[in-house]
Amino acid sequence: MRIALGIEYDGQAFAGWQCQKGKLTVQSAVEHALSRVAAEPVRVTCAGRTDAGVHALEQVVHFDTKVYRKPYSWLMGTNTALPEEVRLLWVRETSEDFHARYSAIARFYRYVILNRQMKSALFRRQVTWHFHPLDEKAMQEAASHLIGEHDFSSFRAQDCQSKSPMRRMHFIHVRREGDRVVIELCANAFLHHMVRNIAGVLMEIGSGKQDPVWAGEVLKARNRKCAGVTAPPDGLYLGGVYYPVHFGLPRHPIFDNLPENASRHAPSDSL
Amino acid sequence: MRIALGIEYDGQAFAGWQCQKGKLTVQSAVEHALSRVAAEPVRVTCAGRTDAGVHALEQVVHFDTKVYRKPYSWLMGTNTALPEEVRLLWVRETSEDFHARYSAIARFYRYVILNRQMKSALFRRQVTWHFHPLDEKAMQEAASHLIGEHDFSSFRAQDCQSKSPMRRMHFIHVRREGDRVVIELCANAFLHHMVRNIAGVLMEIGSGKQDPVWAGEVLKARNRKCAGVTAPPDGLYLGGVYYPVHFGLPRHPIFDNLPENASRHAPSDSL
Repeated sequence: MRIALGIEYDGQAFAGWQCQKGKLTVQSAVEHALSRVAAEPVRVTCAGRTDAGVHALEQVVHFDTKVYRKPYSWLMGTNTALPEEVRLLWVRETSEDFHARYSAIARFYRYVILNRQMKSALFRRQVTWHFHPLDEKAMQEAASHLIGEHDFSSFRAQDCQSKSPMRRMHFIHVRREGDRVVIELCANAFLHHMVRNIAGVLMEIGSGKQDPVWAGEVLKARNRKCAGVTAPPDGLYLGGVYYPVHFGLPRHPIFDNLPENASRHAPSDSL
Repeated sequence: MRIALGIEYDGQAFAGWQCQKGKLTVQSAVEHALSRVAAEPVRVTCAGRTDAGVHALEQVVHFDTKVYRKPYSWLMGTNTALPEEVRLLWVRETSEDFHARYSAIARFYRYVILNRQMKSALFRRQVTWHFHPLDEKAMQEAASHLIGEHDFSSFRAQDCQSKSPMRRMHFIHVRREGDRVVIELCANAFLHHMVRNIAGVLMEIGSGKQDPVWAGEVLKARNRKCAGVTAPPDGLYLGGVYYPVHFGLPRHPIFDNLPENASRHAPSDSL
């Protein structure tokens, strides 16, 4: 039986998603807790690996097991066995052809910037602090240059293992909420560090150091050296993952903004 | 010279505001940091003491010193000496007749409830988790029974040291933001545990265990035993303090809702 899970976690507590010897990672915590409930070893596959310090409002994973438990028992039992920095939000039995990574049509990330003179005592690991006043309208204008299918090499980490640098950006919304600037990005898939590199470029533009058109110039250059600094992980959240409706998984309302013909990222389809 | 400070802090890191021997408190952290900048012992007086686990978006304190530093030097120097769970937000030189506690005309508190099936991994110390669906409209209706000048004995902790149980509640706003219910309360002053006891009553009503009129009945009883449980500290924030304009301190926009004739709490004025 294949089971899908939605997971929230606090990235500051872990050395990223992926298992690493001798380090506490989200994946190892989740596998340890599921293995206790299953009373057999469980290995999970996630929709998108997150780096150290990056949070998830809703990461999605799947795993296979021969053990039968009711979804509610998986949910409650696993949460009891998890550290408080990780919570399962939902559990669904799904079909064998579901794959948390390869079935995904789209992902969305949220990047939260605290834009004021002083750092935050309360939200110090949940936002990225930026001193200089940001012009969120200029950032929104800049973001418009990144929409559509493009070669995102300029926004890709050197160690990115993806075969193709092509990704389809569906939308980027930039808004101000008091002293916060919130960026929400939705694409078929993301390259390694892609959101943090885009956030870095948008913050340069929002600070007035570059014009909005610079975002398009960086994109066209297809060269990582042309972009700015990689923005810190603190303000970054994997917000949700969207799958074909027939899998019957919960769906974040932000995906209502997706075009009807949105399709999953398949490297072989690339331009 | 008398100096006023606005302070944000993460209550989960401290055993409350007030200095206690052998315990890490916000007051001791602030006094330690200010004393380093002043190079002499500094003692501060706050607008409202908060309990262990209670946060502040903006606590206000004052202190006296013979040392001269520019406000910006106090701000940056003190923040450098503070643990990251406390941040000074602003520093103002003020007149000798300013008193953080006695000059205050009004305080506002925010109580944030996460109202969903699962606890939060990300905001586990910043919200109070409530499983049962809450009817925020019933809670708003219930709150209307508490507006005005009343004897709040039913909402007062046994160990409350205030001379009078009379307080003037200016407004209580209850709103839903997705899976959160946010209560904002503004009064001339608050008794010990008053916000948490009101939140406990409103959550009982929001859960459908009591009718909205029950809030008025509890108030009229003037008996702590008639109210419900004291709600947890996690979701509680001291939001801001309002002083007469001539002191020249920053003011939170929520205080625009105050009546023009709002006056400070003075026990001798009580009914």
